[in-house]
Amino acid sequence: MSKRVKEILGWYGSENPGVRTNLARMLNHGHLAGTGRMVILPVDQGFEHGPARSFAVNPPAYDPLYHYQLAIDAGCNAYAAPLGFIEAGAAEFAGDIPLILKMNNHDVLHDEKDPLSAVTASVKDAQRLGCAAVGFTIYPGSANAQTMYQQCREMIAEARAAGLASVVWSYPRGTSLSKEGETALDVVAYAAQIAAQLGAHVIKVKPPTSHIEQPEAKKAYQKANVPAGTLAERVRHVVQSAFDGKRIVIFSGGATREDDEALFDEYRGIRDGGGFGSIIGRNSFQRQREHALAFLGNVMKIYAGEMK
Amino acid sequence: MSKRVKEILGWYGSENPGVRTNLARMLNHGHLAGTGRMVILPVDQGFEHGPARSFAVNPPAYDPLYHYQLAIDAGCNAYAAPLGFIEAGAAEFAGDIPLILKMNNHDVLHDEKDPLSAVTASVKDAQRLGCAAVGFTIYPGSANAQTMYQQCREMIAEARAAGLASVVWSYPRGTSLSKEGETALDVVAYAAQIAAQLGAHVIKVKPPTSHIEQPEAKKAYQKANVPAGTLAERVRHVVQSAFDGKRIVIFSGGATREDDEALFDEYRGIRDGGGFGSIIGRNSFQRQREHALAFLGNVMKIYAGEMK
Amino acid sequence: MSKRVKEILGWYGSENPGVRTNLARMLNHGHLAGTGRMVILPVDQGFEHGPARSFAVNPPAYDPLYHYQLAIDAGCNAYAAPLGFIEAGAAEFAGDIPLILKMNNHDVLHDEKDPLSAVTASVKDAQRLGCAAVGFTIYPGSANAQTMYQQCREMIAEARAAGLASVVWSYPRGTSLSKEGETALDVVAYAAQIAAQLGAHVIKVKPPTSHIEQPEAKKAYQKANVPAGTLAERVRHVVQSAFDGKRIVIFSGGATREDDEALFDEYRGIRDGGGFGSIIGRNSFQRQREHALAFLGNVMKIYAGEMK
Amino acid sequence: MSKRVKEILGWYGSENPGVRTNLARMLNHGHLAGTGRMVILPVDQGFEHGPARSFAVNPPAYDPLYHYQLAIDAGCNAYAAPLGFIEAGAAEFAGDIPLILKMNNHDVLHDEKDPLSAVTASVKDAQRLGCAAVGFTIYPGSANAQTMYQQCREMIAEARAAGLASVVWSYPRGTSLSKEGETALDVVAYAAQIAAQLGAHVIKVKPPTSHIEQPEAKKAYQKANVPAGTLAERVRHVVQSAFDGKRIVIFSGGATREDDEALFDEYRGIRDGGGFGSIIGRNSFQRQREHALAFLGNVMKIYAGEMK
Amino acid sequence: MSKRVKEILGWYGSENPGVRTNLARMLNHGHLAGTGRMVILPVDQGFEHGPARSFAVNPPAYDPLYHYQLAIDAGCNAYAAPLGFIEAGAAEFAGDIPLILKMNNHDVLHDEKDPLSAVTASVKDAQRLGCAAVGFTIYPGSANAQTMYQQCREMIAEARAAGLASVVWSYPRGTSLSKEGETALDVVAYAAQIAAQLGAHVIKVKPPTSHIEQPEAKKAYQKANVPAGTLAERVRHVVQSAFDGKRIVIFSGGATREDDEALFDEYRGIRDGGGFGSIIGRNSFQRQREHALAFLGNVMKIYAGEMK
Repeated sequence: MSKRVKEILGWYGSENPGVRTNLARMLNHGHLAGTGRMVILPVDQGFEHGPARSFAVNPPAYDPLYHYQLAIDAGCNAYAAPLGFIEAGAAEFAGDIPLILKMNNHDVLHDEKDPLSAVTASVKDAQRLGCAAVGFTIYPGSANAQTMYQQCREMIAEARAAGLASVVWSYPRGTSLSKEGETALDVVAYAAQIAAQLGAHVIKVKPPTSHIEQPEAKKAYQKANVPAGTLAERVRHVVQSAFDGKRIVIFSGGATREDDEALFDEYRGIRDGGGFGSIIGRNSFQRQREHALAFLGNVMKIYAGEMK
Repeated sequence: MSKRVKEILGWYGSENPGVRTNLARMLNHGHLAGTGRMVILPVDQGFEHGPARSFAVNPPAYDPLYHYQLAIDAGCNAYAAPLGFIEAGAAEFAGDIPLILKMNNHDVLHDEKDPLSAVTASVKDAQRLGCAAVGFTIYPGSANAQTMYQQCREMIAEARAAGLASVVWSYPRGTSLSKEGETALDVVAYAAQIAAQLGAHVIKVKPPTSHIEQPEAKKAYQKANVPAGTLAERVRHVVQSAFDGKRIVIFSGGATREDDEALFDEYRGIRDGGGFGSIIGRNSFQRQREHALAFLGNVMKIYAGEMK
Repeated sequence: MSKRVKEILGWYGSENPGVRTNLARMLNHGHLAGTGRMVILPVDQGFEHGPARSFAVNPPAYDPLYHYQLAIDAGCNAYAAPLGFIEAGAAEFAGDIPLILKMNNHDVLHDEKDPLSAVTASVKDAQRLGCAAVGFTIYPGSANAQTMYQQCREMIAEARAAGLASVVWSYPRGTSLSKEGETALDVVAYAAQIAAQLGAHVIKVKPPTSHIEQPEAKKAYQKANVPAGTLAERVRHVVQSAFDGKRIVIFSGGATREDDEALFDEYRGIRDGGGFGSIIGRNSFQRQREHALAFLGNVMKIYAGEMK
Repeated sequence: MSKRVKEILGWYGSENPGVRTNLARMLNHGHLAGTGRMVILPVDQGFEHGPARSFAVNPPAYDPLYHYQLAIDAGCNAYAAPLGFIEAGAAEFAGDIPLILKMNNHDVLHDEKDPLSAVTASVKDAQRLGCAAVGFTIYPGSANAQTMYQQCREMIAEARAAGLASVVWSYPRGTSLSKEGETALDVVAYAAQIAAQLGAHVIKVKPPTSHIEQPEAKKAYQKANVPAGTLAERVRHVVQSAFDGKRIVIFSGGATREDDEALFDEYRGIRDGGGFGSIIGRNSFQRQREHALAFLGNVMKIYAGEMK
Repeated sequence: MSKRVKEILGWYGSENPGVRTNLARMLNHGHLAGTGRMVILPVDQGFEHGPARSFAVNPPAYDPLYHYQLAIDAGCNAYAAPLGFIEAGAAEFAGDIPLILKMNNHDVLHDEKDPLSAVTASVKDAQRLGCAAVGFTIYPGSANAQTMYQQCREMIAEARAAGLASVVWSYPRGTSLSKEGETALDVVAYAAQIAAQLGAHVIKVKPPTSHIEQPEAKKAYQKANVPAGTLAERVRHVVQSAFDGKRIVIFSGGATREDDEALFDEYRGIRDGGGFGSIIGRNSFQRQREHALAFLGNVMKIYAGEMK
């Protein structure tokens, strides 16, 4: 095992060998194996946004097997999806790539202001399907956040008992936050902290902007003069907010963009700020397979330091 | 076993032999045995609409044994009903036809805008009554959808442990949707996707219209130029939205209509679009028994390809 | 065992021998033993309306032992009451009369528009007290109906496991219904259907009026020209609505009335319409004991066909 | 055992020997042992009203051991208090006096209109602390009454399984009732009936006034001409309302009053109306210890018939 | 063991040896070992206020290991933190300092008026991480207080079964209280009483002001002429309100202040009023490590009586 992976596993000293083994499985798989960086393919948009909005632009992606193959061929560290998608290929691709079973989901046929995701899978499902980890979304800022925090903590405890690692999607949303606030630096850093305090092993947040949402926080940022001008600086602050960098923090890829260079710049910023990688859905599966493979290849080169 | 049924069972590779056996029982029963198509008789209208609205037009249908016999004589793949109706004949007709126990129900004595069905049976009931599958209704679009998704997932998991298959009625309803939106193409396709992601083995939806309800979805349909002019095209899209056709999707028969030819055309559209069959209640039991048998015979001929 | 009781038990073919034994215990007890008809004494008014409204008119009735003795001496098929009343005499009268433990209750110190009864006893209570059956009230039409349906189903399942029969009081109430609608023919028939679908073995409803509450139902009644002019016709329709007469449906006695002949006419109507009997509380215990015994004697003669 | 205690225990014939033993322990302890009357010291005001309002007037009462000693020295039948107070002395005073663990409590830092007490102890706590009984407050008339009824019933069932007796504080409160209605004769009698129906062994209510709150009840009281002019008459009606006197009904002592004679008259009224005793908190511990002992001594003499 | 610690443990006579052992572990650790006084380092502000507001002023404090080392080097009696922070160092610092696992937490991304903390850890977590105690926050005065009281009681019961001590943060908040009322003398004393009645072993409250919030309480304070002019007097009243001083009551350190002497005066007041110590977060970790060590050293000298 690489020195870097050993170092990372060292941060999880309270965890049992099962959890650490599964963290290692993800860190040691694919193109970025051993680097301590991760690129994960997540495909929950069929549930979260609907099938046509997700797959009509690239129809082969309606097929759950497509994504398994894409994640494997691209050399991703792991593939994450809801129950149905994981079930559809778990037997066929058993052992080919670490799987993250997404445990809760939300759809937009009813899109409430203070969202609460439905729990759509269990740790037992993750075990029978051979997964390495479970994934859970929390919405800090939602009036329903307490419910999700509690479900999340219980899921992590249950997953630990099964020797599985836990990945937490921490996405601020709700009536307490402005739209701009959902990606504000203070809010994203706070969301990373909450996930870490709940016991997440891997934390997924959105790349933060330089906006500061909460007046009390603004005072603290100004007083301490926290650097926030570049994405790298902001990523560094978020990573620091997750136990001074002792938790794996990865960043979501966001909506599909046409301009690959702008995306590459974003990944460079994450890399240079000490981010541990990206979890890239729509920018992967909403292009033709060949383009997606080329694109993901470049992303991994950026994280591996093989491309500036 | 026919090649087609083997192919279909192959899509459920993560399932245990019990679940696959029960899927096979339904696919291999009745007139359409082995074709991969299904016609199911469902009788939950007594609960959902009231007894007189359901049965007064054909009084023998007040008797639960009537429906067992009708489903058997018509050569249906399965018979689906709520607890009381199933209990009333399960001993007498034991082993005569695969049974689907409907696990939740809703009545219109109190008809709320964001419906939530009551859970009215359990997997243990399905086991003691000798059922092949359990059935569950979800209402995507309802403010109570999360509750139903969670109940549905738990039911599927419990049914699996008992080796039973799961059929999900996915009917969009609720204050977030217009009346027209309940059968809109994007909404029905989304409802099929959600059921599939929850782990349904068989998915029941309504035949979609060409209306598109959600503005964000409309953009995707226009951009991808999804064909939606004919029912066959719309059915194809819905089937594609359920894991690219790798889940069994059947279509509800709707309210009683006088014009049989119009109904036959609808079944032809479903067939030609790759739909797996129909689940026909009111158009079966709200006619005299002889007419019903003739009608269902024709429907099965359409699905079997024995009638244009 | 009489042929009629054997026939009735035959309708419950999916039930275990314990449940059928307890149904038989009630059908084979008292004056109406073996006739397939039942007269039950229920005393839950102390909880439902308060003690003075229930018992001040006949003060010996404050004593729980009074009702045991009354039911026994009158030759009722069973005695039904809430936990406290049953406990107060279960030891003293052990084995003297089949007992129905009322499992939920509602009081009018807080009388909400959409009622939800409190669960006030358990199947374990019924077992330790030697009961033959459990009783449960549902209020179809209440915004809380789903909760009660689910509690009811769980109670029936638990009672079955203990070999006990289940009696369901199905009383439409709630903001969705007009006052007149609570006893409307369509609503009472619907309430009987719901109880039957939930798995009730014995169903208690109110005698229906000829009013039709729901517009959609009215169309069906008119189209099918359902006879509803006499109480016997309306009772026949309600009994038909409970699985074509294959479930035991009994009718509540209602508020105290002075005119015995009018009451006797009502029982004649129930009898002639195929109703299985009556459950008569206030008209029994709100008279002096001797009058009550005479009155109940006549009621049973009517049901036994010994009195026109 | 005295004849009277044997008679009282006879009313609880459905109970197991453990429950009857613990009822006997309370009835046979202290100055009133064997008389069938009870005086109990309850100290939950620290939780219900706050410490200063409860104890500042007699500071030694801040100490939980003070109350144990007071109850013992006064010769009370039992001492009742919340978890913390009971725990604070249960080891030191083990076996010295029967204990009633108060299982739920309410505070006035948030004083809602439709109160719901928090469950603050368990039957397991009562067992490990050596208690003879558990105590539970219900608020009939509160919109939250159903919840409390259900908790109460479950507590009684669990306590029974542990051989413990159950004492129910039945205090009408809530938006459905006027302030005057909380102690109205019909309402207090109804509250006693509800507690009895829930299975309470000992019922605590407030001394009723002659006010009648509910219009429907008023008709019944007038028709039956229920005597209600004196406290003794009203107590007799309340005791009658609790299973015709076959349940132990005790009366709360109310707020501190300066006029001992007025209090003595109240206890005489309870005694003469057939009440089983008093549960006297503030009038006991809000006086100096010596005065309290003298006062309680007189109260017990009244109940023992040693003082007019 | 010191005489004082023996005396303190004597107050917990109903507790099992495990709980008393863990209370002793905290009382016998660090600079104040054996004195019966405690200074605890709590670090839950990352969750409660956000990471930047908590740590930006002293960036090494982003690292969870920093706080472990600070608490150890300062000679604190214990270190308290949420799950994530405890997990991050529990293996590395195993056995070095008694740990208090904070079991519920609240964040300000959604800051409701009647707060309810999310349960973010379990007693099983405390056991696997080697903790001496669990910590729980209740908000008396919140409309959600009942829920928290019940969770708190259950946590204490579960912790007892595991031999762990329980620390309760009792912080009045909610729509029923004015801002000033949150630290009013009557309210803080009431909050201490509630925590004690719930079974807390160690109670944490805020230092009270001389304001009296509740009109009913004001009468009692005036009538009894409770001294409240100095902090020492007010602390004495609060300690008295927690079972006449027979429960360990400690006081929170509050927001960061620049003026050390003012803080020292506060600790002197707590000490002189019979308070058992302080729990000091922000005034510890929001300064540079060396200053924090010097500051905490002085605080302990004050409590040890080594400094006036």
